[in-house]
Amino acid sequence: MYAIGERINGMFRAVAAAIKEQNPEPIQGLAREQLKAGAQALDVNVGPAAAEPLAAMEWLVKAIREVTDAPLAIDTTKPEVMRRGLELSGPGAIINSAKGQQEQLDVYVPMAIEYEASLIALTIDENGIPRDANGRSEIALRAVAAAMEKGLPTDRLMIDAVILPVNVTQPTPGHVLEAIRSVKLLSDPPPKTVLGLSNVSQGTTQRELINRTYLVMALAAGMDAAIVDVLDTELMDAMITAELLMNRAVYADDFLKAYRASAAG
Amino acid sequence: MYAIGERINGMFRAVAAAIKEQNPEPIQGLAREQLKAGAQALDVNVGPAAAEPLAAMEWLVKAIREVTDAPLAIDTTKPEVMRRGLELSGPGAIINSAKGQQEQLDVYVPMAIEYEASLIALTIDENGIPRDANGRSEIALRAVAAAMEKGLPTDRLMIDAVILPVNVTQPTPGHVLEAIRSVKLLSDPPPKTVLGLSNVSQGTTQRELINRTYLVMALAAGMDAAIVDVLDTELMDAMITAELLMNRAVYADDFLKAYRASAAG
Repeated sequence: MYAIGERINGMFRAVAAAIKEQNPEPIQGLAREQLKAGAQALDVNVGPAAAEPLAAMEWLVKAIREVTDAPLAIDTTKPEVMRRGLELSGPGAIINSAKGQQEQLDVYVPMAIEYEASLIALTIDENGIPRDANGRSEIALRAVAAAMEKGLPTDRLMIDAVILPVNVTQPTPGHVLEAIRSVKLLSDPPPKTVLGLSNVSQGTTQRELINRTYLVMALAAGMDAAIVDVLDTELMDAMITAELLMNRAVYADDFLKAYRASAAG
Repeated sequence: MYAIGERINGMFRAVAAAIKEQNPEPIQGLAREQLKAGAQALDVNVGPAAAEPLAAMEWLVKAIREVTDAPLAIDTTKPEVMRRGLELSGPGAIINSAKGQQEQLDVYVPMAIEYEASLIALTIDENGIPRDANGRSEIALRAVAAAMEKGLPTDRLMIDAVILPVNVTQPTPGHVLEAIRSVKLLSDPPPKTVLGLSNVSQGTTQRELINRTYLVMALAAGMDAAIVDVLDTELMDAMITAELLMNRAVYADDFLKAYRASAAG
């Protein structure tokens, strides 16, 4: 699984403080720690409270780029902040994210092509979040069609079928699994699938248990990538073990250590 | 998930000793503990070393029946031991198990009807364990056909797609998941699906982690039942959480406690 580390997000107090004080060390520490724990890309989100989101994104990306060339997932709803983040990140970045309505796809698909980025497309559109798996697949198909039409390789499209908290809507986790399976049939090469995992446990009392259980379920359904807390050791153990059981990694008695050694090296 | 407790098995030293000494207390303790931990049925296996398997099975079932009426899964390869175990267990028992070749189905399907039992049919036949999911489904179809022909309701048939240790054959866990999904399409009502879970981790260094990760994957694929170590708390936490995420149990903040309270009561 392609693990995108979720921790550089202004929603977390330490990150918000670092941005405000322009103190790069906590940010650079989080970048290094997450990569060492197995992140293959880093999500970068200035948070809801940033007074100047454009300046904050510029500062964050530059601070991270001083310590790593890892791909960054630029996480913003503002097109001008996205553009600047992609510019500073360089090729191989991830647009996180576009909604599935045509106007947004018309903005972000060309932006993904221009900056050699991948594009996360949410299965949300002007009508909101679909109630079932079919509704999710229909929006995904629209995103695939937009990618094909404009010339973005379909495997640079990452469909996020939008998981919601299990305590808010219990049928959704099942619908999302079904959507992950069916999205794979939409094109050749198929789009990638991705989830913002932690949302499934928002507001519950067993966040880590719910996160790692659902991650394993989504991996069994064929999910390719997820935005996760890579610093959660039990979550990563579950992920590494699920990959092994899906025959995506070779068994060795020390498979957990082997994964981490390879991530750290 | 229908949890069948695996611990009353002569393979475990304490159980073998209790059988040998005709000491019912350890057996009755295991019966009570497993039911309290969430088992809905108890597997009963005299173990490979029992000198007189028929007498051992009689003694075991009688000892268990002194403390509980819970369904028993009579786990033996010997038809005469099976018959006696079913007789003493009473209606609602589980035959564990028949292989998928016609001669065995011809013996055990009528036995399931006679004793009002369910029947676990392994996807193994005279040619051994199939190499892929299709081979497993073909044998399952043979078992479904035998059930239909002889009049065993197809939902009293439990297909066990035979998991093997992940360190021996890494493609098998994926094949078994695929078989679990496809077996559901064989009849209406569909057969149930079941696994002897612990086999997936045999000989590995991370048995509990592998067991609970694969259990969650199998549940996401639609598995109905499993023979598991219900005394493994983390395994049961994973199972309870997966059921919640599959919308088979209602969310409450104390969903783990709620499950256990209901099991204990």
